[in-house]
Amino acid sequence: MGAPEPTEGPLTAEELQLATRNRGLPLEALRYDRTPTGLHYLLVHFDIPDVDAAWRLQVGGNVSKALELSLDDLRARPRRTFPVTLECAGNGRARLFPRPISQPWLDEAVSTAEWTGTPLGGILEEAGLKPGTEELVFTGMDHGVEKGYEHDYARSLTAAEAMRPEILLAYEMNGQPLEPQHGFPLRLIVPGWYGMAHVKWLARIEAVTKPFEGYQQKMAYLYKQFSDDPGQPVGRIRPRALMIPPGFADFLSRRRTVERGRVEIVGRAWSGLGSIVQVELGVDGEWRLAKLGEPAGRFAWLRWTAEWDAAPGEHVLSCRAADSAGNIQPSEQPWNYQGMGDNLIQTVKVTVR
Amino acid sequence: MGAPEPTEGPLTAEELQLATRNRGLPLEALRYDRTPTGLHYLLVHFDIPDVDAAWRLQVGGNVSKALELSLDDLRARPRRTFPVTLECAGNGRARLFPRPISQPWLDEAVSTAEWTGTPLGGILEEAGLKPGTEELVFTGMDHGVEKGYEHDYARSLTAAEAMRPEILLAYEMNGQPLEPQHGFPLRLIVPGWYGMAHVKWLARIEAVTKPFEGYQQKMAYLYKQFSDDPGQPVGRIRPRALMIPPGFADFLSRRRTVERGRVEIVGRAWSGLGSIVQVELGVDGEWRLAKLGEPAGRFAWLRWTAEWDAAPGEHVLSCRAADSAGNIQPSEQPWNYQGMGDNLIQTVKVTVR
Repeated sequence: MGAPEPTEGPLTAEELQLATRNRGLPLEALRYDRTPTGLHYLLVHFDIPDVDAAWRLQVGGNVSKALELSLDDLRARPRRTFPVTLECAGNGRARLFPRPISQPWLDEAVSTAEWTGTPLGGILEEAGLKPGTEELVFTGMDHGVEKGYEHDYARSLTAAEAMRPEILLAYEMNGQPLEPQHGFPLRLIVPGWYGMAHVKWLARIEAVTKPFEGYQQKMAYLYKQFSDDPGQPVGRIRPRALMIPPGFADFLSRRRTVERGRVEIVGRAWSGLGSIVQVELGVDGEWRLAKLGEPAGRFAWLRWTAEWDAAPGEHVLSCRAADSAGNIQPSEQPWNYQGMGDNLIQTVKVTVR
Repeated sequence: MGAPEPTEGPLTAEELQLATRNRGLPLEALRYDRTPTGLHYLLVHFDIPDVDAAWRLQVGGNVSKALELSLDDLRARPRRTFPVTLECAGNGRARLFPRPISQPWLDEAVSTAEWTGTPLGGILEEAGLKPGTEELVFTGMDHGVEKGYEHDYARSLTAAEAMRPEILLAYEMNGQPLEPQHGFPLRLIVPGWYGMAHVKWLARIEAVTKPFEGYQQKMAYLYKQFSDDPGQPVGRIRPRALMIPPGFADFLSRRRTVERGRVEIVGRAWSGLGSIVQVELGVDGEWRLAKLGEPAGRFAWLRWTAEWDAAPGEHVLSCRAADSAGNIQPSEQPWNYQGMGDNLIQTVKVTVR
């Protein structure tokens, strides 16, 4: 019941099944500051659950007062709205060699929506975390098996992290109630973290006095080098820039054709580890600075632009971002066993005519 | 610049690129009568175009009065709303052997949304089709290259077909303006036909006096047996039934686990060639009749249910539909060169415990 080892072989039937269910952002949709809901990337581990009208959020464990909250109860609490860039921790996995067998993302598992909810901290204060609380465990209604472990999807945050003011119990996305695939009726939003932390279809929050040992915490989302490596937890989003592929596409190869002359290359850049301080556009291996726009919010991507004087012929464009914490995207991706946190620079092949 | 030949080999990098851009319906979402917008399947040939606020629909060619219509103009015309089941003509392609190289759908390229628009016929009457009009050509704003042919996506309908009352110029989906990926600001809806007919990002309609010879009409969407076969046009949707895979999933294999005892299997069935008259559930190769619900509309799928007394062990479930035109889904899929109109019965492997 273990996982298949990373492979040097071609894509498997299992990876295809995942790729037809899950959804990346078509890269031209980087043009929208706020990703339309139906274009937002999506990674669902098990099935999208069918949520009952009787749903209530349970808050319990090591608290002074257990809570049971309806959606109306949550809507009656303080309300905050802001844009958040979410990225799947496995983005870029299918570019690794050998390739870990899981959802085979290339570059496209990122989006930015506007999320509305009530701060988690206020709810935890209402419940009253009792002394000794180390972590909060967030459990979704999605149930399944992964590598032989049957479980409800669950993730934890330390008590300190959970009290950060930007962490939301979100009930709206882009001004509408959540669609089923994005966690209706309620999901956790943990700005700056990879997608695995943003638990969808949230059923309960439990204060615990020991570190949570669940599958998604201690086995799935780790940086590790081999199967039994205890590894390091995956957390915040590493910096990445993506460009809108310029010109137009060939249907099958997605190769681009661009008219000669001055071309404005437009893209987005983000990091969960700091603010974006630099984006570079690479043209046939030569780097130049891009012009940075203002981020749409503290936890959202920014827009960047760079001019390119396109001469006829074959070219390779690339881009890379650096953040205020001193991280820059790698030209060669350090490998890890599960393909987590990859942020290899994007390359786009272009024919100028 | 031709197409690669169908292959007996594993999935290619080009197919993966398409699979991460395009989106199938996660099969558990068959539970919704009306597919939420963000769950609707999606096949985009080139890039999603960035539509200018100055957009106008042009109606011209062999007409008495050329028209130029804004979205407000179209909204001022008679308004109709009804549900329509759309399916990609390539659904099931990746189950063929040899496998045509294109978007590698398994079973999931189908959805049902509620579309709102004004009947095409009324607009054509306003423009006045002049004698000799054979076809109407519908051209989108999406531009690219396919098998060496650079073009704007375009499809035609015969004048008789175009005047059918159910054909809409649609500006809303599920009660909201179209999202960009579904054709904003306007798309054609041709109920009963495979997805290629429902031209998105509609820019112009032209009345022509000869059959349209465009790439998407005369080369792409054909039933053919070899590369140079002139083939037969792909048109209406063949019957198909799909079930919601019961129980819960393994993340990677999608294999299902079901608890023993009475299980209600639920699914959908549709046909563009007639009404659905029969759905059968197969259990380990033995067929039984399913119970049919009412279709949500004349051009929408119906819900079906079947009881299964699940005994511990390994089982294979399948389902198949038949329509009033005498079509039934095949147990062995007749092959065609481009993988069009496949409607092989679905099979779901289940472990009962």
